Parts: sequence; C-alpha cells; structure tokens
Amino acid sequence: MTDTASILTRADDNLPQSLERLFDLVRIQSISTDPAYKAECRKAAEWLVAELTGLGFDASVRDTSGHPMVVAHHAAGRAGAPHVLFYGHYDVQPVDPVNLWDTAPFEPSIKELDGGRKVITGRGTADDKGQLMTFVEACRAYKDINGSLPCEVTILFEGEEESGSPSLKPFLEANAAELKADYALVCDTNMWDRDTPAISAGLRGLVGEEIVITAADRDLHSGYFGGAAANPIHILANILAGLHDETGRITLDGFYEGVEETPSQIKAAWETLGMSTEKFLGEIGLAIPSGEKGRSVMELTWARPTAEVNGIWGGYTGEGFKTVIAAQASAKVSFRLVGTQDPDRIRAAFRSYVASKIPADCSVEFHEHGGSPAIQLPYDSALLNTAKSALSDEWPKPAVLIGMGGSIPIVGDFQKMLGMESLLVGFGLADDRIHSPNEKYELQSFHKGIRSWIRILAALAG
Amino acid sequence: MTDTASILTRADDNLPQSLERLFDLVRIQSISTDPAYKAECRKAAEWLVAELTGLGFDASVRDTSGHPMVVAHHAAGRAGAPHVLFYGHYDVQPVDPVNLWDTAPFEPSIKELDGGRKVITGRGTADDKGQLMTFVEACRAYKDINGSLPCEVTILFEGEEESGSPSLKPFLEANAAELKADYALVCDTNMWDRDTPAISAGLRGLVGEEIVITAADRDLHSGYFGGAAANPIHILANILAGLHDETGRITLDGFYEGVEETPSQIKAAWETLGMSTEKFLGEIGLAIPSGEKGRSVMELTWARPTAEVNGIWGGYTGEGFKTVIAAQASAKVSFRLVGTQDPDRIRAAFRSYVASKIPADCSVEFHEHGGSPAIQLPYDSALLNTAKSALSDEWPKPAVLIGMGGSIPIVGDFQKMLGMESLLVGFGLADDRIHSPNEKYELQSFHKGIRSWIRILAALAG
Repeated sequence: MTDTASILTRADDNLPQSLERLFDLVRIQSISTDPAYKAECRKAAEWLVAELTGLGFDASVRDTSGHPMVVAHHAAGRAGAPHVLFYGHYDVQPVDPVNLWDTAPFEPSIKELDGGRKVITGRGTADDKGQLMTFVEACRAYKDINGSLPCEVTILFEGEEESGSPSLKPFLEANAAELKADYALVCDTNMWDRDTPAISAGLRGLVGEEIVITAADRDLHSGYFGGAAANPIHILANILAGLHDETGRITLDGFYEGVEETPSQIKAAWETLGMSTEKFLGEIGLAIPSGEKGRSVMELTWARPTAEVNGIWGGYTGEGFKTVIAAQASAKVSFRLVGTQDPDRIRAAFRSYVASKIPADCSVEFHEHGGSPAIQLPYDSALLNTAKSALSDEWPKPAVLIGMGGSIPIVGDFQKMLGMESLLVGFGLADDRIHSPNEKYELQSFHKGIRSWIRILAALAG
Repeated sequence: MTDTASILTRADDNLPQSLERLFDLVRIQSISTDPAYKAECRKAAEWLVAELTGLGFDASVRDTSGHPMVVAHHAAGRAGAPHVLFYGHYDVQPVDPVNLWDTAPFEPSIKELDGGRKVITGRGTADDKGQLMTFVEACRAYKDINGSLPCEVTILFEGEEESGSPSLKPFLEANAAELKADYALVCDTNMWDRDTPAISAGLRGLVGEEIVITAADRDLHSGYFGGAAANPIHILANILAGLHDETGRITLDGFYEGVEETPSQIKAAWETLGMSTEKFLGEIGLAIPSGEKGRSVMELTWARPTAEVNGIWGGYTGEGFKTVIAAQASAKVSFRLVGTQDPDRIRAAFRSYVASKIPADCSVEFHEHGGSPAIQLPYDSALLNTAKSALSDEWPKPAVLIGMGGSIPIVGDFQKMLGMESLLVGFGLADDRIHSPNEKYELQSFHKGIRSWIRILAALAG
C-alpha cells in the first residue's frame, strides 16, 4: 500500500479521462419518470456495469418491475477492513421546458463562467451522475496505484430515484444479505457553499399525490353553460388555496402531529452558518419567505413540513383563447415531512380534505406518487466524525453538519431494513439548477469530490 | 316568381348535394386561434367565395390583418325589396383533446343515432359552418327555381369569431357603406329544443384575459426551496378561489354595476318553457347549479354575469411526478356580461384585484383576449314578429323568444356602427357539443334550417 497522497495525485492525473467518462454517462437520456425513455435507463445501467466490471468489480444489471438496479462488489485489499455500501442514482429528471436550456441537456460540455470557474453542463451532471462518478473515479485511482481498494465496497445504483423509487424496498428486502454493509455512503446532497463541505444529518420525507377532478361529462361552452355548470378548475383552485392559512400553516387535520420544534442549540448552530433570507432567496430572484411566518429560511427548508403544488392543468392551455368549461382539472401536490410525521396519515388527511370539497355531482380520483418519512441522523457518531475530518482536510473550510430540505427515502430504508447508518456527503451547490433547465455541476465539485472519497475511504480503513 | 312551396321542394331535392358541399367546407381545418392553421382559414374563405360566385353573387376574399373576410352581394329579383345582411363565421374551435373524438374532427360523416335521428359529425358542423350553409343553400333553391333572390342580399362571413374577432370592428368601420342593409340576419344560435325554433333576444357580453404569474427566476427543486420560495401556482389558486364568494357572487369591485334584475314577466315566460335544473344539467352529467344561489338555470345562463377559468397550467404536467416549484403559472379567465356592464371597467377591476394579490417579489403579466358588452334586443318588433311567424310555419312548435348565454359581439357592432337591427336565428341544439369533442349538427337542423331561411326571406320580401 502506498500513501493517500499518491492516490490523490493519480486522481488529479486521471481527471481528463474521468470527465470523458462522465460525459458518456450524461449523454444517456435516462429520464425515469417518462416511459418513453425506458431503453435509455437500461442503457445507463449497462454502461455503469461495464465501467465497474472494467475496474474489477463483480457487477451486474439487476432487473426489477421498473428500471433496473446496478449492483457491484469488490473485496478490500486487506482482511478486516470495513465494508461500505455506496448508493447513487443514474436516472435523471425530465428536461422540459427544453427551450430554456442554453446548451442541449444531453450534450454535456465544460463552460467557463465569469471569474474563471468551470462548470459541467447537462441534465444529471449534479443530480446524480456527476456525484456517483466521484466515487467510481475514487475507486479507479486506488486500483490504478494499489491494485486494490482500502475497504470492501458494494455499490448500489438505482434508476428510479426521480420517480418515487417503487422498486427499491422490494429489492432491498429480497437482497438484504447481499447489500448489508457496515455503513452506507450516500452521495446525492450539497455542500454548504463552494468552500465548505457538508454532511447532512436531517432529511425531509415526501408524500406525492395527483388529483383529477371531474365535473361535467364533457368539455362545455362557457356561454351556454357558464354560471350554472360546475367548473372543475374553480373547485381545484379552492382546494389548493385552502391548503394553507394566512400564517402559512398547512390546514390538513393532524398535519403537525410528529413535528417537533428544532432544539435551540441546533438553530443557534445554523445561525452561525451565515445564511440570510436575502442571500438564500436573492439567488433565485425572490426576497420574501413564503412559508410559515417568523422562521428562518434554514428552518423553513430543513425542519418544517410543506405542501407544494408541483403541477396544475385543465381546460384550454394553447395559443389564443377558448371559451370552454373543462370537464376535468388536475394537480400534482407534494408534502415534505419532518420529525415523525406519518406519510400514510398525511396522505389520508389530504384525500379526506379534498373529498370534502368535491360537490356531490362531481368526482375526484387520486393517484399515489410515493411516500417516505423524514430521517434524523445522530449529530454525533464515529462515522460522522471520521468523515468530517477527512472532508476538512480536502476543502478550504471545515465540514459542517446541516439539515436538508430534499428527500432521500433510501436513508430510512437502509436504517430500517438493513440496520445501517448512512453518511450523506455530496458536492452539489444550491445554484446547480437540479430539476431545472441549465443544470450544471462545478468542475471543482467533481474533482475535489473524487479526492474527498479517496480521503474518506482511507480514513474509514483506519 | 313561383310560390314558396316550389322553392321548398327544390331545397328538399337539393339536400344530398347540399350536404356534400357542407362536407367539403367542414374538411377545411379553419382553426382561427392557432397560427398553424392560417392557410386553412384562407382556404375556407376562398371556398366560400367560389361557391357564392357560382350562385351569381359578386363575391370576394377581403384581406384583414388577421384572417380574411368573405363579402358577397346579390341584387333582389324586384325593385324595392328589403336588403338583408347575412352573417356567419367560417372559422372553428381547436379540436383538442383529439383522442376523445369518436370520428375524425375534419372528416365529416352522417351518423344514425338510436331512434333513427341522423346527425352530421365534425368540428364546425354546428358552429358555424352548418348554420351558414343553411342560408347559402336557401339562396341556391331560390336561384334554381326563380333565377333570382326575393331580397337584396349581402353576405359577410368572418374568420376570427372563435378568436375574439380582432379585425371585425375595423372592417365594419372601413366598409360601413357597403355593408349597411335594412336588417342583419345572424345564424350562430340554437333552437329551444328539437321541435321549437327560437329567436334570441338577449346575449351576454364577454371579457377574456390571460394572466401569467412569475415568482422565482427559474424552476426550483421543491426540496431545497419548498417552504421558503413563493410558489406561483399557490398565488394563482388563491386569486382564482377569491373570484367568487360562498354565495356564488363575483367579488370584483363594482362588478355588478349595470346588472339589472330580470323583469318578472320575462322570468315567468321563461318558466313556461319547461326547462328544469335537472334537465339542463342532467344532459351534461351534473345536478347542482354552481353559480349564484336561488336563481334558475335559465336566469344563470341568460341574465346573470359569470367569471370562469377556461384554462390553467403551471409546473410539471407530464407522466409521473416532478418535485418542482414552477417559475410561472398561468390561467385564461373570461367574464360573461349582462345589462350595461362595461367590458373595460370589468377588465380593469380584474387586473387590479389580481395585482393586489401578487407578493412584492413576484410579478404578473396580462394578455387581453377580446371584450364586448352584452346585447338586449327588443322583445317586440316587426322583424321579430315576421320571422317568428315564418319559423312557426316550418317547425312542429311555434317559435319562442329566449335569452342566450353565449356572446356574439357582432350584434352590438351592427347596432352601434351600422344602425342595423339583428335577427338571431339558428338551428343548433344544446347537445351539439360545440367547442367540445364530437361536435355534431342534426341533419334536421340543416334541412329545416334551409327551409326556414326560404320562408323568412319570403316573409321579409312581403
């Protein structure tokens, strides 16, 4: 075994080829939520298996009832080394509205920004292909220099993270023995800022629902029927408007059961991070926090539950005007959960609220789009402290423990089903525009991300 | 000159050819609101000019800044006969959602329904191509038998009725001398029922608005920003939900200025028509009137103003789920006006209401989609009484005077700009599904519609 420094140097030398490999992966249009891209999802899985096999992993594409998993195993260079399970996802979000992209979403490129910062452009560069490739390339540097890995490594890449992970639980259940490791490493999160790595200790849960309201049995002329016939868009607008009260609180029955106030020492630690409302909202062109009154943006996005309408449609939405009363109106609604809020109870409360607002001669259908509780990891553990120190060696500033507004349901599943603690480390930035046009991943995130995993693996191996 | 009976018989004999001509016109995809169909609109205008020229009219396509007008003139067979202006429109509504059509919208066919009734299927069969062709074919029967027409006839066919008629006023203004006649005959309305012809004496006005609300400067991840960033769909839902109060009244400032209660003798006459809530709403699968409480469906649709959302869209509306907070949300909203409600003041009140609900860090854009005041024609005039008696000769039941929920702005323009009284007679039925998939026109409406115009022209000629 050589020292970590040579491994890091090797990663630096590999960077041009590492980027080429990432570009190849980004070119695959693995949009999991749209059935039209099914073959592309499989192609991404097969590409990863080929890469990992080339690195000496025992890797395979594993079929599910949806998009396939990638599972790969590699022994440690020495007996008694710890065993880690690395998790990432190869699927990406849809790219619409595609006309708002400055570069083609599936033609990655390096762009130099004002000030000389370089970014990698393209859908999935930050979420999550660039992130998962940091780990693969870290393994490559180890193999290049040592011919072995410092820890036993199992890799699990999912292809349905952006569409509710329907196959994940059954797969973990069916393959628990194969996937169980000492720790899970999950790379799908952000840094605190460009200089400060972060370990996420809290993640919000998620409940997704789609509702379709039907009024008349056909689209109607608003002249002949307007004023007498029910308009499903009005019914929908009333339902959605009633989800929040004037103070920004969510009105569903029992919604706040399981929501605890954040301990004051945690809020105080967050205050020291120097994030202001102006800075957080200013970056996206806004200024006024929209949620519950009297709480910081960190608390609102990390520690408070939400109800958001993610999509709405009904009636005539084309060019010009059509004086129609639609037969149907639809919305996609999601709830972010914290503490011990129960996804099933939240879903039931939402459905019962919606149903109570539907006139007797109209109807509503519900479609479930995933559900997972929030996760709270310990703020103090050996795993966290080891990783914190390894990250602090790599980056200009020491690593910080933060909360996270997004949902990574697998962390809960790892805990519940495989009894594994997770380490959530990622190198995304808040302005990466994930899920939006012009997604990018900083070249520095990719490069120092690879170097960070080299250091973390070395630290875990002891 | 021969008697009316031979003209009517000739129309009967012509029917198969009359239908073929209507089919030719329906096949032209003249959707005026969608710029993709511009050439098809011109094609429809040219087809009509060719037909009218063949009938001996001095007909021409007349360019506007939008879709062209068709204007045609024909002298009367005898000096001193009255001069009528016949109005119809050759443009049609969009056909989406096209998958809900049982037959292709632009491939007209005759379909026999249970009970033996025959209907003509296709977009525009009832609104308004089938209706305008009843008049053209009435003229043909006269020409076939007499070689002349009983009245002097000017025809005006518009190609922008379904998209707010932007060119109509300027065209009437520029060609007032050419278009001025003794009466206008407008054929774009319904019968009372299958057996009972109707003359419409009141028409609601219309204001169309489109609003686009912008919050953040890009689409956001609802995990990272949810709870802190403004969601434009929530803002929009609140605005739309606030348009009506719990009693169904519209909340805009000054909205009911100019709205008079319907005289009790008119309401009493309407009651005798035998239209019940159950019948009116039952036909479209509904049961509960949605507008202002305590008013009949006739009052709600003929004599009360409305606010309707005709379309709404924002965020992710595709398959699956996307946890996005949209940058923008949009809606198309229309108001039906009655009495002397002022379209400009209603539009201003709406805009000021919407603007008052937009948070300081968000913005709204407004797009105007047409505006016209309501029309109230006299319930008693020589023109009306002549037409009433001619119609009563043709149909099983006597003609009735009714109100109308839809808007035909040209009636007001004829009155104001050309000083002409209009006669609103049409042969559509409430279940013709105009503006919806599976539009149809009854074969009886077409056939007896032709015969009705023959009788009306004879009666007007005296």
